[in-house]
Amino acid sequence: MPVGTQASVKGLTQEALEQLGAGIILANTYHLYLRPGHELVRKLGGLHQFMSWPRAILTDSGGYQVFSLSALRKMSDEGVRFRSHLDGSEHLLTPEKAAEIQLALGSDIAMVLDECIETPAPREKAEAALKRTTDWARRAKSYFQEFASRNGDLKQWQFGIVQGATFADLRRESARQLLELDFPGYAVGGLAVGEPHAITCEMAAEVTAMLPKHRPRYLMGVGRPEQLADYVALGIDMMDCVLPTRAARHGLLFTSEGKISIKQARFITDQGPLDPKCGCRVCRRYSRAYLRHLYASNEVLAQVLNTVHNLSFYLDTIRRVRHSIRLGEESCFLSGAGLDRNRRPPRMQP
Amino acid sequence: MPVGTQASVKGLTQEALEQLGAGIILANTYHLYLRPGHELVRKLGGLHQFMSWPRAILTDSGGYQVFSLSALRKMSDEGVRFRSHLDGSEHLLTPEKAAEIQLALGSDIAMVLDECIETPAPREKAEAALKRTTDWARRAKSYFQEFASRNGDLKQWQFGIVQGATFADLRRESARQLLELDFPGYAVGGLAVGEPHAITCEMAAEVTAMLPKHRPRYLMGVGRPEQLADYVALGIDMMDCVLPTRAARHGLLFTSEGKISIKQARFITDQGPLDPKCGCRVCRRYSRAYLRHLYASNEVLAQVLNTVHNLSFYLDTIRRVRHSIRLGEESCFLSGAGLDRNRRPPRMQP
Repeated sequence: MPVGTQASVKGLTQEALEQLGAGIILANTYHLYLRPGHELVRKLGGLHQFMSWPRAILTDSGGYQVFSLSALRKMSDEGVRFRSHLDGSEHLLTPEKAAEIQLALGSDIAMVLDECIETPAPREKAEAALKRTTDWARRAKSYFQEFASRNGDLKQWQFGIVQGATFADLRRESARQLLELDFPGYAVGGLAVGEPHAITCEMAAEVTAMLPKHRPRYLMGVGRPEQLADYVALGIDMMDCVLPTRAARHGLLFTSEGKISIKQARFITDQGPLDPKCGCRVCRRYSRAYLRHLYASNEVLAQVLNTVHNLSFYLDTIRRVRHSIRLGEESCFLSGAGLDRNRRPPRMQP
Repeated sequence: MPVGTQASVKGLTQEALEQLGAGIILANTYHLYLRPGHELVRKLGGLHQFMSWPRAILTDSGGYQVFSLSALRKMSDEGVRFRSHLDGSEHLLTPEKAAEIQLALGSDIAMVLDECIETPAPREKAEAALKRTTDWARRAKSYFQEFASRNGDLKQWQFGIVQGATFADLRRESARQLLELDFPGYAVGGLAVGEPHAITCEMAAEVTAMLPKHRPRYLMGVGRPEQLADYVALGIDMMDCVLPTRAARHGLLFTSEGKISIKQARFITDQGPLDPKCGCRVCRRYSRAYLRHLYASNEVLAQVLNTVHNLSFYLDTIRRVRHSIRLGEESCFLSGAGLDRNRRPPRMQP
């Protein structure tokens, strides 16, 4: 899922996203709550109509951005009190509020508010966050169901989020508790926050082994292109990552020959395409020399073209994995890091 | 002509420019000489290949940017010595050098180096600049012809530039002198630098009345959308202006109902298109509310979409003028400011 923080995948038109074949994007609840405001978006017909994006949208719960962007956070069982990074205004984000905001935004998939802690974390802290996450998931689900009973059938799905830091038994316990709440899809949160790839895989595997394979399983915030197939092999159906779009803004480009920094002097006279094996519209038309010039000259077009290519590279990677699954050859894509093939859960639904 | 200063019309892909129907763009000699360097562009096959733009390119002489951007300018009959605004390095731009750079860039139309002075100017200063401009045009043409005799038929046209500030007789004298040098096209320079629109029109009319109508006549650096038809009526065939692209970056948008600033609060809930009478892809798909949100949120997409619309508005304006000329109805487009209908030169070639 390309990341469209403020109802825009940075630098790309919605037409460009459609051309790339993106079927779903992620938008940030925290950002849209603060600006332009969820009530405004509701009034304007919801996020799809507001940004003219007819395909699917997933909204996060806003919790992660509260932790990473806002000042003066104060956690309690009620929720998290914080100050806006924009104007310093004070807000309280509760599980109910996060659900309410996302219902107003009208995304296709909404995430429950969870408590995401840093890893490595002490076991007691991980246990407390797990308990709070389940409590909040229950409250979020209640709010959602009440809203649904008042307003009829909703078009939105609400996903639960499994926590438990890097403790396998806590991950399993969290999954068990959430399964009781019976969500239409489940995310694995609190990973890809600095721990080794092998640990990410191990934790994801613990969870996906327990989750129903006919419901979407979403690993949040991953990953590097070479890791995507690993996650799919572990039973992950959905991923999001700012890496392709953020790296593009810094001139870092993913290619079939590895990551390159387009600002390097070796590209000054390079008339070849960015990636000879890529068929995206950037690689078909523009040279490395031109892309380097645009980046060195601070041209906005550098960001636009780099983003098109990186997202194309990610979406192509997933398309190739999907194709290999159909052919029964997924193992050729795996990096092998930390994967125990014997306990691998059933593969992604084609 | 959309302005693509550094071999990029800011924020737009070349595909987007093609979709807009742009047949020619302007690139800046000063910028491309300093970065990435004209010899590099020559080596990479010229500007068309470098930026993957198969349609026409006009390059200016670099003189205007030397005056407006660089430090420590020192004018002499030889040329203008200046320091780069990028790294402070010292350079000498002569009429020969400006021609050489543009030959290396391989643009379709190159401009001779001229001395552009501020208006209002004392008559003596205007006379001196006129004399120098003609001398420089002669040297530029000599250099160009020698190069052509060494390298065979060139694909480039070199245009002369008429100066003379706001003195009608000096404008005529400058045109006379340049006509003797026999250029395939002529520009009117040193206007639209702050003088009233009526004066711009008056000076342009003095010159176009003398220039052969079967050769392109180019009024440099104009203009506001409502002025374009006036210039066409005066016999002008080509214009360039940073206004549509620069205004777009500041959220200023040209519409059939006048100029609007998209950041205004009145657009917060406005679900209508930017301009109901515009058929551009921005007006067909996005609302004013969304455009306002993008601008208020500092999203790069704001610049992209605003630029698409403004350039579309300019190109549509010219298309409408062209259509009216074919129908013999051009007068309905004129603002009337400063136009003496009796001495209007023959209209633009369809």
